[in-house]
Order: sequence, then structure tokens, then C-alpha cells
Amino acid sequence: MSIVVVGSVAYDTVETDHGGAKDALGGAASYFAVAARFFAPVSVVAVVGRDFRPEHERIFTDRNIDIRGLERRDGETFRWHGRYHEDMNRRDTIKLALNVFEGFQPKLLPDQERCDFLFLANISPELQYWVVSQVRSPKVVAADTMDFWINNARPALTKLLGKLDILTINDEEARLLSGEQNLVKAGRAILKMGPKTVLVKRGEYGVLQFSREGMFAVPAWPLEEVIDPTGAGDTFAGGLMGFLARHGRLTETVLRTGVVYGTVLASYVVEKFSLDRLLQLTWEEVDQRYRGFIELTDSHHSRWISPS
Amino acid sequence: MSIVVVGSVAYDTVETDHGGAKDALGGAASYFAVAARFFAPVSVVAVVGRDFRPEHERIFTDRNIDIRGLERRDGETFRWHGRYHEDMNRRDTIKLALNVFEGFQPKLLPDQERCDFLFLANISPELQYWVVSQVRSPKVVAADTMDFWINNARPALTKLLGKLDILTINDEEARLLSGEQNLVKAGRAILKMGPKTVLVKRGEYGVLQFSREGMFAVPAWPLEEVIDPTGAGDTFAGGLMGFLARHGRLTETVLRTGVVYGTVLASYVVEKFSLDRLLQLTWEEVDQRYRGFIELTDSHHSRWISPS
Repeated sequence: MSIVVVGSVAYDTVETDHGGAKDALGGAASYFAVAARFFAPVSVVAVVGRDFRPEHERIFTDRNIDIRGLERRDGETFRWHGRYHEDMNRRDTIKLALNVFEGFQPKLLPDQERCDFLFLANISPELQYWVVSQVRSPKVVAADTMDFWINNARPALTKLLGKLDILTINDEEARLLSGEQNLVKAGRAILKMGPKTVLVKRGEYGVLQFSREGMFAVPAWPLEEVIDPTGAGDTFAGGLMGFLARHGRLTETVLRTGVVYGTVLASYVVEKFSLDRLLQLTWEEVDQRYRGFIELTDSHHSRWISPS
Repeated sequence: MSIVVVGSVAYDTVETDHGGAKDALGGAASYFAVAARFFAPVSVVAVVGRDFRPEHERIFTDRNIDIRGLERRDGETFRWHGRYHEDMNRRDTIKLALNVFEGFQPKLLPDQERCDFLFLANISPELQYWVVSQVRSPKVVAADTMDFWINNARPALTKLLGKLDILTINDEEARLLSGEQNLVKAGRAILKMGPKTVLVKRGEYGVLQFSREGMFAVPAWPLEEVIDPTGAGDTFAGGLMGFLARHGRLTETVLRTGVVYGTVLASYVVEKFSLDRLLQLTWEEVDQRYRGFIELTDSHHSRWISPS
């Protein structure tokens, strides 16, 4: 089954203590789409400027990612410039230029309105809600959000939450949204706001999943080096939604396996700048780290069992 | 098979934002022994003063914990007074009085010298080494340490590491001991210093296990409230070593299951001050949370499988 992702396609400039990238392909929809494409067909709905380069368009078209919904408008592509601290959990935004993204009014094509899986990357909850309204009978609607919308668009966000099967949110944002410092209380409180599943992203500490069936805790894949954490959350969401779309149903088992695949994809993307590692990644590597992950977390140290 | 634990028995005064405890039973050996006793016979080797109260002695004797090695000396029992921050990962020591613990010279009884499982709680590495030298042919020797010894007794600690099957150490101490900021690098570096298994304790984020067989990652049990984190690490070690002693062999499967039982015991002890929760704890509760833990971390959401 196919997936529609609505969000940003951007050019990122990233600085870290050990190097950087300049005007590299970024944006939530880019990371999501390339990750999800390992599992299922993906349509990208986003906007770029006249400066968007053919080689970046080919990243999508080479993978048969549908970009009929990648609108081109007069002006420049969304640009973000950030610098990571030595502790990579912290970063400062040096410059943010929304450019053509400012007037983004995502309109789905007729076939996209009939999609089964929809991911609303981090855009305003008003726009996210407007997109949900265009989709006829989705199987799974998932969304991401951020502190800015929690602080400045809470009524719209609250309205959106009632429409969601899955909300992905990081730990600090979960505390902000719920008003609860304790993460277990926070996750359960957000569950009551509407989403059927809440996925709290904890960076290097992994993901806590809250659903009516209970909790699921997964560590992150232990990495010896993180080069660039940008896009890890969207790559996680891409791997997860991709796996769900491939299986077509949302059972607890499928959901948990999807969370593990999402974690695996995210663990790869941070190994290089921009989407570089994702673009080299083979299915064999995904499969290998997935098996490694089962081994890493298997408290009975039993042999690997096929998830299918 | 039986366990010998060598370490402190103390009186703790603890302050938190939501209450406290005054002159409550504490000390690494106390937490360890009561936790380990859920699984196997335990002997405590420690020293207390003349002020050590009969009701605290009965905590051990009521559980058939062997305290022939609990020496009584003239003077006062080791006392620690600490205050936890709102963020319970941080605490300040307000007062520390070693008292009779200062002259602690642990000498094992003849039958203790033949023990199979030895846990060296956080005392000076010189003393830890001296205790190891008394044991004839142990199956498993495990030890804990802290930043003070890493900074001030590194040669003795290095000598000890070569004698260890298991080292338990928290994340910051693992960084300090190895000189590596990245925890995966730190764990692997410490493994090369001698211990067959390194267990890096990450508080609310669980445990990372490093061994020749690879890595094992377990989250902590997600709690809605933590009342008093004191003794969590020693309770973890007690549950782990207790499980290992019950099974009598140190395979990767037994080790991983032991780490989960240790995590379960530790998740209970922080629910109340001092050893209070541990003293009320039933085997049924341990078993229930163990099953809950398997469910929490099972990426295939399969039914619970007996660890035996």
C-alpha cells in the first residue's frame, strides 16, 4: 500500500565539531520518503524553489518516489543552518529561511486523496489538519510536531490529535504537551488526547511506545560515532510507516516490528551528513542490523525469529 | 549456590522534594543481600557499630541471610546524608561519616572462602583485591566501583579488573575509567581491561551489557514515580548475582535473564525510601514484573516464554 508524506524539502547547512555540510539535501519529507521507500511506494507533497537542483530531484525519481506533488515556485528553497554542540543532543539554529515554504498550501492529487498511509511531517497543525481533511479513508494517519506548535498553536494541535493513529514526538516536547515531567505519565496523558499510539523519541536512548495495549521500550542502536543527527526522527518515521504500509494492517506486532525497523533506519542516517548514508544503504544492511537489533534486545538470547 | 557480598551496611538520611528518611537502613551490602536472597543463599561481610539496631539485624536473620561476617565494632555505624535534586539523577552529599567502616578489613570465614559467587560492593579496590585473594575457586566474581577510586586508586583498580567476571559501573564512571565519551567505545575499552562482562548502568535509561558475545541493551522499567533512587545499583547487582547463583553457570542466556531480574528488583526498590519496598516485595510481584518486562521489550509481541 502506498504512503503520502507532506512536509518540507530543504537545503541544510550543518556544522559539527568534526566537519559539516553546506546546502545539502534535507527536510523532513526527504528523509521520510527515502527511508519509507525501502518498504513501500511513496508520494512526496512539498514545495521547492527554482534553485532546486536536478541531481536532488533524481534522488527521488531514481527510487521511483512519486514527486508529482513536489511543487516548484518562484523563489528559493527552504534553508536551515544549524550547529551541533559537542553533546549532539543539543543544537543551535544559526539561520532559518522559510522562503517558498512560507506559502505552502499542500493540495493532494485525486489518487493521493485515496491513500492508505499518510504522514504529516512537522508543519503547522492547521495545515496538517487541512491535509487530513483531504484524505478519504486512510488506514493510518501519523504526524510529527514540535515545541513551536505546542506553544503557539495548541488549539489546532489538539484538534489534530483526535485524528491521529500515531503521534511521534520527542521527550521534551512530550513533557511540554502533557505538562507532566515523568515520561510515563506524559505518554499516557497524550494518549488520552486522541492518538491511538504515541511514540516518544529519546534520541540515543531509543523510543517509548504508548498504546492501548501497553508500553513498548526499544533502545537506540548503540553507535560508536554519530556524525549528524539531522533527520533521525523523520527517518525513524519513514522506516516505521514504510513497514506498516508494506504489511497493510496495524496490529501490535506489526507496529512493534515497524518501530524496530524505524530505529534501524535512523541509526544508519546519523552515520553521515545529510541523506548520504541512506542513499548508499542496501536492503542487506537494513536486514543485517535488524537481526542485530533483535539479538541486542533479546533477553532470552534465542535465535532470530522471522517477524513475518 | 551461595553468594558472599562484601561492602557497607549503613544508616542513610535521605532528602527529596517529596519527603525523606532519617537513619534508615542502607549500604550497598544491605540492598544487595536482600535482593539476592530472592534467588539464593547470601552471606554478608560488613562492619557496623554498637548503635546497629536489633530490628535491622532481624531484617537479615528473618530472611536467613548469613550475618556471621557482620562484624560489630566499638563506635558508630557508617552514616550517609544526601539530598536529591528535582532531577533525581543528581544528588549532593551533605554529610558522610565512615565511622567504624574506616577500619574495615574484611576477612572471610573458611566456608566463605569456598564460595562460588562473590560480589565486591563499592569499597577501595585494594580491599576488593584482598577479598578476591581469599576466595579459592570462585565461579563468578563481580564488583562495583565509583569515580573516587577511578580518580585516586587507578593502579589498584586496574589490578582488580583482571580478576573480574563482571564489572558494574555507571555511565559517567565508564567514561571516566575509559577516557571515551561514547558509551559503546567506553564499554568495549573497559572490556579490554579485564572483566569478561561490563554492565554500564544508565539509571532511568537502563543497562548496556558488553561481553565477548556482543551487546545487550535493556531499558529500565518505566515508572510513573521514583521516590528514592538510593541503592538501585546494588539492588540491580543483587538480583543479577542471585539469579546467576541460582542457575550456577554463566551462559549468555543466564546472564541476560539475570540482568532483567536485576532491573526488575531495582525498579521496585526506588518506589519507596530505604529498603522499604524490597522488604514488602513478594516473589509473585517479582515474577509479574519480569513477565511485564518481557512484554515491554519483546519486539515480536509474542507470548511470554519461560526463561528456564
